[in-house]
Amino acid sequence: MFFVVYAFRERFRRKRTLIATIPTLSISFHIDATFGTARAARLTTPHGVVETPVFMPVGTVASVKGVSQDVLEELGVQILLGNTYHLYLRPGVEQVRKLGGLNRFMAWPRAILTDSGGFQVFSLNELRKVTEEGVTFRSHLDGSAHFFSPESAMEAQIGLGADIMMAFDECTEFPAGQERARESMELTLRWAARSKKYFEQHKEEVPWNRASGFQFPVSSNTKSGNWKPETGNGDETQALFGIVQGGMDAALRKESAERTVEIGFPGYAIGGLSVGEPRAVTREIVEATLRHLPADKPRYLMGVGTPEEIVQYAHAGVDMMDCVLPTRAARHGLLFTSEGKISIKQARFASDQGPLDANCGCRVCQRYSRAYLRHLYAANEVLAQVLNTVHNLSFYLDTMRSVRHSIALGNRAQLLSGEQSGVKP
Amino acid sequence: MFFVVYAFRERFRRKRTLIATIPTLSISFHIDATFGTARAARLTTPHGVVETPVFMPVGTVASVKGVSQDVLEELGVQILLGNTYHLYLRPGVEQVRKLGGLNRFMAWPRAILTDSGGFQVFSLNELRKVTEEGVTFRSHLDGSAHFFSPESAMEAQIGLGADIMMAFDECTEFPAGQERARESMELTLRWAARSKKYFEQHKEEVPWNRASGFQFPVSSNTKSGNWKPETGNGDETQALFGIVQGGMDAALRKESAERTVEIGFPGYAIGGLSVGEPRAVTREIVEATLRHLPADKPRYLMGVGTPEEIVQYAHAGVDMMDCVLPTRAARHGLLFTSEGKISIKQARFASDQGPLDANCGCRVCQRYSRAYLRHLYAANEVLAQVLNTVHNLSFYLDTMRSVRHSIALGNRAQLLSGEQSGVKP
Repeated sequence: MFFVVYAFRERFRRKRTLIATIPTLSISFHIDATFGTARAARLTTPHGVVETPVFMPVGTVASVKGVSQDVLEELGVQILLGNTYHLYLRPGVEQVRKLGGLNRFMAWPRAILTDSGGFQVFSLNELRKVTEEGVTFRSHLDGSAHFFSPESAMEAQIGLGADIMMAFDECTEFPAGQERARESMELTLRWAARSKKYFEQHKEEVPWNRASGFQFPVSSNTKSGNWKPETGNGDETQALFGIVQGGMDAALRKESAERTVEIGFPGYAIGGLSVGEPRAVTREIVEATLRHLPADKPRYLMGVGTPEEIVQYAHAGVDMMDCVLPTRAARHGLLFTSEGKISIKQARFASDQGPLDANCGCRVCQRYSRAYLRHLYAANEVLAQVLNTVHNLSFYLDTMRSVRHSIALGNRAQLLSGEQSGVKP
Repeated sequence: MFFVVYAFRERFRRKRTLIATIPTLSISFHIDATFGTARAARLTTPHGVVETPVFMPVGTVASVKGVSQDVLEELGVQILLGNTYHLYLRPGVEQVRKLGGLNRFMAWPRAILTDSGGFQVFSLNELRKVTEEGVTFRSHLDGSAHFFSPESAMEAQIGLGADIMMAFDECTEFPAGQERARESMELTLRWAARSKKYFEQHKEEVPWNRASGFQFPVSSNTKSGNWKPETGNGDETQALFGIVQGGMDAALRKESAERTVEIGFPGYAIGGLSVGEPRAVTREIVEATLRHLPADKPRYLMGVGTPEEIVQYAHAGVDMMDCVLPTRAARHGLLFTSEGKISIKQARFASDQGPLDANCGCRVCQRYSRAYLRHLYAANEVLAQVLNTVHNLSFYLDTMRSVRHSIALGNRAQLLSGEQSGVKP
């Protein structure tokens, strides 16, 4: 019964949102095609257009480990993720702000999203202390004490200057009882309101907004000093997304989604998943949450997943995903191919002249053999990490391109059959 | 007095060698221009032309640490050096041979030179044992015992299949008394003769020579399997260079050079330098040796040097050089620039928006700031090594391009003044 209501509402929404855009200076979201619950859209940011569904490679401290930015561009990466927690510790927010924000700092002209720092504070800190005000935590680098509140986390993300930033949330641990999950969700909701309030009051302080008064350094003998990655006119601000929590309880997730939407954001993330729960639960919670998020705004599923999962979730209606899996697995010699995952360290590849993936067009598969990649890994050569990462990212990005293509084709098929039935003789 | 004789002989040689080529199937050396003692030439190998003076980046185990082969091509690398000792231990000669030789194995279509293994056996093995027959040594990887003779070192290098291979030599330690240096030199001379004999009898066994009977694997679903990097018709063989030793004694060096030339090779290397002696001694010995090497054959100075030194030696008449300095220094954050060497880890670069070297056109200097490179190094990011290595190699290759250009211009200026004096009204 619920499903029917949902389906009708979704159908109505899809029609409406075909031309919907969000009227803000910071971001716009235009749905080009829908197919079932999936959508193909364009997310326009101050640093360019992002075609969704999109996979965002993780560039923790302003670098996708081992891969140069020109190679990322060549791979078709349209948006990168930076970790606020790591960047806050090193090189520090003020350092990045002084240099004009992350885009300039890392010479990346396309879009960037920074996470809230909440997940890292929770996953990397056993000694954290949470109060209503915020979280006290210790640096994993030197043990020094630090404090993140919704306000200070917003201040950090404004200084970093990514196109999209995330409300400060508490990532509920797994497992958590119903009461604990509710408490945590309520805290995240209060923090979401505080995050939004701070952001609205300070959003023009982003280094690339004209009103920030930021003076880009100009040096007569530098090339990078004169580089201006921004595509806009200096009026843009960042976009702040809300994060839905609620543990593994579908009712809490519904409530979290509805109350986060009430606060109002230009995009919504599903947080608190991939924290140790079974995969089936992840999927159930994602689907239970998605149906309570507005169809005309981007939906971001944080920290997910395998190639199979990102396809699944894109078809369920998720627009944005990020995960360390392709880059981290690459460093361990685990490579994704059209025929499944392989461990390149295995001796059976030592004389294998074939490419890693005969169906892959990436620069690694076009040039190198499995035997060579196996040798690089066995000899502990840095190039192993570089090439493995390039391939795995290519595989993820190709996967998402295929998904977008299939959504567009599915949509066209629907439109064509509709036209034909309307053109009867 | 000696200098005058030398200068006359050199002038005579220069004229003669303007059109000299070595009539072998394996290699040819054509001098395009001379200026003072310097020469600009083209060394034609089975895997393409190498413009000299040339700096050869070191790719120890079939990889220039952290840099993909397409980037090396873009940098203009025309010849790489591989270390026989390392490749013999891992992945093993038979593995590389089975895959068609180093070029195919590492997907590098341009020229390669392998060293003799002698230097590594001596520098990495404190427990080596030298006899007339050869050297027993222990693997630095697992302590296992191995034996290199001139014959087995040639067999290894033929299996690896580089364009240029080196006679097996004993690298005389520093300091060494006159008697010890002579003994060592005599041993190297006997080994040179044995190296040549083995090579002549077995040179057609190189995987890419048709007579080797080697069947390149063909796989229907592989791209790399069908890749054929060889430029020739399958008749080529490798070229074996001799190595001059003799410690830091100019008279021994002269004798070593003359007797090595008597054995006869298509190219000659100066070995046994950069082993701890003062730089002034290196230079003295290089110059003392060069004058006894034939002007119409390539001269290779092994394991040298700083940017200043490679310019100096190129002007002294050296055609080929290799050194781990640019790549190893890069990994330690030491970067060569047109304004001198800098240590990118220094805090003074933390906010420096300028490029690493304002006079450098490499992809690193075109895109990234010193602040970003400093951050990558401080954060121990792998990309630091990648970008630093690309820049340092670019600096070395640009330096050599400048040297070639200046030789060509100096030569043209000489020719022009000659023409003008000959066209009097």
